[in-house]
Amino acid sequence: MAPTLEGLRQRLVEFAAAREWEPFHTPKNLAAALSVEAGELLEIFQWLTPEQATAVMSDPERAHRVRDEVADVLAYLVQFCTAVGVDPLAALAAKIERNEERFPVPGAGAGGALDVKPDVGE
Amino acid sequence: MAPTLEGLRQRLVEFAAAREWEPFHTPKNLAAALSVEAGELLEIFQWLTPEQATAVMSDPERAHRVRDEVADVLAYLVQFCTAVGVDPLAALAAKIERNEERFPVPGAGAGGALDVKPDVGE
Amino acid sequence: MAPTLEGLRQRLVEFAAAREWEPFHTPKNLAAALSVEAGELLEIFQWLTPEQATAVMSDPERAHRVRDEVADVLAYLVQFCTAVGVDPLAALAAKIERNEERFPVPGAGAGGALDVKPDVGE
Amino acid sequence: MAPTLEGLRQRLVEFAAAREWEPFHTPKNLAAALSVEAGELLEIFQWLTPEQATAVMSDPERAHRVRDEVADVLAYLVQFCTAVGVDPLAALAAKIERNEERFPVPGAGAGGALDVKPDVGE
Repeated sequence: MAPTLEGLRQRLVEFAAAREWEPFHTPKNLAAALSVEAGELLEIFQWLTPEQATAVMSDPERAHRVRDEVADVLAYLVQFCTAVGVDPLAALAAKIERNEERFPVPGAGAGGALDVKPDVGE
Repeated sequence: MAPTLEGLRQRLVEFAAAREWEPFHTPKNLAAALSVEAGELLEIFQWLTPEQATAVMSDPERAHRVRDEVADVLAYLVQFCTAVGVDPLAALAAKIERNEERFPVPGAGAGGALDVKPDVGE
Repeated sequence: MAPTLEGLRQRLVEFAAAREWEPFHTPKNLAAALSVEAGELLEIFQWLTPEQATAVMSDPERAHRVRDEVADVLAYLVQFCTAVGVDPLAALAAKIERNEERFPVPGAGAGGALDVKPDVGE
Repeated sequence: MAPTLEGLRQRLVEFAAAREWEPFHTPKNLAAALSVEAGELLEIFQWLTPEQATAVMSDPERAHRVRDEVADVLAYLVQFCTAVGVDPLAALAAKIERNEERFPVPGAGAGGALDVKPDVGE
């Protein structure tokens, strides 16, 4: 059966509890760790051309690293959310709704791809 | 009904398609954007003491920023995974299993909290 | 004789040229690499208490990592500046002047330490 | 007269002292702030094509942001080094020497540009 985010969250809670790692899992430390792991994911791509980056998963060693860093980022994001009491899925649903208002779909005929993507971060 | 990660993923795909933003959503660009947003989440905490950081959600303005940055990080992670064809939940499940082998639970009586947490990143 | 930033910059230019690494040193790649290395520096501190972090240089292995990551961050910053034609010392001097206007020194008696430091980034 | 890194360092020390910001300038906080600012520099480039990124300084608004973020990164790097007692120029000089041994210049005729640049971080 496919894992759910909530199921994985509970496994991460148990994993940390069994190893007495909770004292390290403060919001500030977890935000730092999340940023560090996002940097490790970016590291895989830093010297690649756009073409090499698009084909990253065709290299088995890089593909493993990508999956591994994705897991680390998601793990720390989930643990951060647990530490501060935020539901990440609800937060994302709310953000998508705000962005649908902030960035209306261009009307028919308005057309034309953007030169530079607007920043959806607030 | 509570949103699912897959449901949100589909909304993000439609959101980008409707605005013709797909050309920007290369794996390398999304990995960079993920790292940038993780930095923005960390920024909230950078000058806070551990105590202030733990109470971050009791300040409504900071609480909003936290939820907003969590949403941005999750959005870019999901979009990155879509771009490279990785299932983030499967990747995290596999990583938890590897970590359960790499970091066995200390036996009864081994005890004692760690001075420094080992790095679970590979 | 103590090295200067300009002298080190020239050695980095020669180092990359001799190894034919210039094609990789685009502004975008170097900005990514700089961010990745700043993450590696932060990694050293992510699970440390403020007290452990303050004493970081008393541990020889950590002290070596700190110096090594500082060097990597400075190297990529200098190489980024070379790629875009920015003088980092002039940029910092100009920023300090702007910040001296933006954050006037509190008058005598205004006193009192801040609860949270204002963000000097613009 | 052109500013020196040491001269700017002293101005940053005085700037922070006059505003009673030293309590915030712990090694851990400064490492986090450095990483955050490196992310803000990367943000300028995240959606740019390599060609747009190379021409970044021809856009006056982006050029200002680049110089501003370079200044922030350098400021926090210098303040971090002050907090831990590291000389950044000496650290970089030592690293260049180590890298000259780790990555010998290819002999005449060995030739050929690399497909992927090796990682000079240790």
